[in-house]
Amino acid sequence: MSQIKLISRASRVLSGAAVRSELSEAVSVQSQPRHTTIRTMASTQNKTLTLETLNPNIKKLEYAVRGPLVARAGEIEKELEKGAQKPFKRVIKANIGDAHAMGQQPITFIRQVLACVVQPELIKTDQFPADVKQRAQAILDACGGSSVGSYTMSHGIELIRRHVAEYIERRDGHGARWQDIVLTGGASNGIKNCLQLLCNQVGGKDSGVLIPIPQYPLYSASLAEYGLAQVGYYLDEDANWALDVAELERAYSEGSRHHAVRAIVVINPGNPTGQVLTRANIEGIIKFAHKHSLFVFADEVYQDNVYDKDSKFFSFKKVMTEMGAPYNTVELASFMSISKGYMGECGLRGGWMELCNLDPDVQANLYKAISAMLCPTTLGQTAVDCVARPPVAGEPSYELWLKEKTAVLQSLDKRAKMIVDTFNSMEGFSCNVVQGAMYAFPSIHLPPKAIEAAKAANQLPDVFYAFKLLEETGICVVPGSGFGQRPGTYHFRTTILPQPQLLQEMLDIFQAFHQKFTKEYA
Amino acid sequence: MSQIKLISRASRVLSGAAVRSELSEAVSVQSQPRHTTIRTMASTQNKTLTLETLNPNIKKLEYAVRGPLVARAGEIEKELEKGAQKPFKRVIKANIGDAHAMGQQPITFIRQVLACVVQPELIKTDQFPADVKQRAQAILDACGGSSVGSYTMSHGIELIRRHVAEYIERRDGHGARWQDIVLTGGASNGIKNCLQLLCNQVGGKDSGVLIPIPQYPLYSASLAEYGLAQVGYYLDEDANWALDVAELERAYSEGSRHHAVRAIVVINPGNPTGQVLTRANIEGIIKFAHKHSLFVFADEVYQDNVYDKDSKFFSFKKVMTEMGAPYNTVELASFMSISKGYMGECGLRGGWMELCNLDPDVQANLYKAISAMLCPTTLGQTAVDCVARPPVAGEPSYELWLKEKTAVLQSLDKRAKMIVDTFNSMEGFSCNVVQGAMYAFPSIHLPPKAIEAAKAANQLPDVFYAFKLLEETGICVVPGSGFGQRPGTYHFRTTILPQPQLLQEMLDIFQAFHQKFTKEYA
Repeated sequence: MSQIKLISRASRVLSGAAVRSELSEAVSVQSQPRHTTIRTMASTQNKTLTLETLNPNIKKLEYAVRGPLVARAGEIEKELEKGAQKPFKRVIKANIGDAHAMGQQPITFIRQVLACVVQPELIKTDQFPADVKQRAQAILDACGGSSVGSYTMSHGIELIRRHVAEYIERRDGHGARWQDIVLTGGASNGIKNCLQLLCNQVGGKDSGVLIPIPQYPLYSASLAEYGLAQVGYYLDEDANWALDVAELERAYSEGSRHHAVRAIVVINPGNPTGQVLTRANIEGIIKFAHKHSLFVFADEVYQDNVYDKDSKFFSFKKVMTEMGAPYNTVELASFMSISKGYMGECGLRGGWMELCNLDPDVQANLYKAISAMLCPTTLGQTAVDCVARPPVAGEPSYELWLKEKTAVLQSLDKRAKMIVDTFNSMEGFSCNVVQGAMYAFPSIHLPPKAIEAAKAANQLPDVFYAFKLLEETGICVVPGSGFGQRPGTYHFRTTILPQPQLLQEMLDIFQAFHQKFTKEYA
Repeated sequence: MSQIKLISRASRVLSGAAVRSELSEAVSVQSQPRHTTIRTMASTQNKTLTLETLNPNIKKLEYAVRGPLVARAGEIEKELEKGAQKPFKRVIKANIGDAHAMGQQPITFIRQVLACVVQPELIKTDQFPADVKQRAQAILDACGGSSVGSYTMSHGIELIRRHVAEYIERRDGHGARWQDIVLTGGASNGIKNCLQLLCNQVGGKDSGVLIPIPQYPLYSASLAEYGLAQVGYYLDEDANWALDVAELERAYSEGSRHHAVRAIVVINPGNPTGQVLTRANIEGIIKFAHKHSLFVFADEVYQDNVYDKDSKFFSFKKVMTEMGAPYNTVELASFMSISKGYMGECGLRGGWMELCNLDPDVQANLYKAISAMLCPTTLGQTAVDCVARPPVAGEPSYELWLKEKTAVLQSLDKRAKMIVDTFNSMEGFSCNVVQGAMYAFPSIHLPPKAIEAAKAANQLPDVFYAFKLLEETGICVVPGSGFGQRPGTYHFRTTILPQPQLLQEMLDIFQAFHQKFTKEYA
């Protein structure tokens, strides 16, 4: 049985991205024959790990943002490189919030501080502004042996945790304890660490977590991985994706029949939905959480990405604190990342979480659990420091920093409007205002013939649409089914990240494709 | 109920490091009163997460390398800073393999490449050698938007995976498939990802994993976290910590009574034990693994750290390949890290795993599961590239790189011998040769009176000894019970990482302490 056949079997069994990527990689096995014998023999032997004996939660787990469509986009890129003729010249990856990959330039201040901490000799030169060198030196002084090559505490360097607490105090106008700040390798790590605490039976029922539908699939993937029950609540598309407390109550009461519903995830600004919650809406959610003793996961990684002039970001911590007793006692974890905002430093893997009102025993256990993973990367922590404590007026780096930050956010604002206006001008499209975050999530009307064609192709209708879009135009978006949507509705998520010129090109191609598609399946 | 009291309750319930660190942090709450009210109120309220409803696996998990002793060491450092009078002036942290923290200097080549990828303008200057700039440019070319701020594939940048495969080919003299290389955020991530695959019932029994005793506590911690059964096999202290296949069979047969034993962990060179396995020993282990269809976890992160002139590192992959059929079909994951070796870049969080003979379906599932975590840090990956593809003779960076690498390894060799000789000269100490890795794990004889005193203090005897050592001398080691040891024997692990002069000082202090201790409890 050849390697190719084996992997082709894998692709029938699985729907994840990895299979296709394995599949495409398997082709190149032929140029590396030495190892093939071992692998072919191995496959005929009794293995200790097979699909049948594999952790079933890992089998269940799906992560659409890097799903089969994205794997296919990667294949197409390789085909284009090899000179394949296609109706387009390049793949436009609008599937993932990866700003630098789409041409956004790094913030100079962050990169200069990073250069100095990895190569401290640069601090002695006059290549960088004084404040950059001071920041870098302060971080080095806080590292063992004055090297970023040393481990740090598992919850991060104390100096940086203190800077994060100060950042939160400035943001909210309320105190923040640096001891409750945990630096993480991106928000995902923190979210998973907290979700994992909930794995238990309570009152004879498995724990369940309320998550929005549509949601960012890290949540569904992590719940599957940990064997936690996913209890979905629908966002209200007609109210620009607001959270309706009556819907929360419905979901809670339905979920509680079979599960111990113990937590609620709220993503604000929304991913994939782009809404910014009003203060009143957040108050309603906090009251709901308090009423049912729910742990609140506030995914606030897009807190800097608010474009709509009538919208403003309010942190759950701030609202809860200002609501006073008894609401200021709700258990809360708020997550932040350096991958989003104006910095978009996805590859550096940095972020933090703030823990509020946790039982000290539980918090101690969480800190113990993360200690086995040693520490988040020091360079991610360094970038976190730059975000938590940016240059201030009067410091040499301030002007450039402000100029770069403003330019990024203004351009995102412009692109958010461009994309929404274009989508709303397209027949069968309906797109809510992108008040914040980095995505549009339009609803598309698919004609019955298209739905039949999808069925014939054994694909969900929105997946069918997105695959056709990719194959015919090179535009890669993520089908709504990867995030969840009301039955019978179809959506997709696109980022607003392509640079203005490319975005215009993408929208023009998209319009032409959709006209053709609508005609074809009319 | 005050914050202090609450946390003091936590410290009775838990034994992890985090509690003490929380405890020490709690003291400073008093200077930040604003938030205290909320926390105090919160504690009287019904929480969704308490010790009673917390994931029980998280409660079980322990990680001794950052345990209560280390937390106490941190407290003592803070006390010294504040001017406390102690019989010593500084804490010597010999508890963790953290080379840079103990004064080892970074490898220039690695840091120069890092500086260039974070600040690409440096490539245009003449500050760095041409090969450094070429490496940096090649990595940037492989990043989306030519920025290390972009996400990479979840298993890492293809270019770097190819370099790792070439490194393994040079090391072993056998082919390696780049498609089977997964770049990771340190070895721990990869180990956990693979262990998690095993979580399942097989034949009505929970899965179990054979791990050495003594072991590196990441394993016991991760097994606890995932609810996998720990099946310990004893290393043979009398044979310089070799693996005795008869003992493996005993452990397997005993473990199989209640568990489906599906995997074996081997750490070579050994942590905490410092042995380097002979080729014959590895062959025996592979035959044993094949006989029982076990998945082999080869923890080979210390592969560059071999000091003994009669020892040589053989990878499990190499030995297995050369044994031929049927042994070359054993399922294997080999783990490597940039935190150890001659580079010691712990803080950057980089590593890789090589997967051999995995069922393609299982490998596809593993790749799918890691995709939700987005990607390992690009800067860790950059350092991995420097390790996998170091400068070669003729390149401008070669001489300095070789000089630095050789100096680190020769100095470690010298320190390994120094420590073993000193311990073996001490009454009641017996220490095996440190053939490799970064640790000595001497056995100590504790007089009956000391054991009684420990009992009275409600501590294990080795913990009692290590705490006394810390409080009286500032030397921080990890008690053997954190790694596991045969009942009735006592050990501790110390790193060999303090620089020669500090190490001499540490050993002198240690000798004096031990004489005093022996006299006191004679």
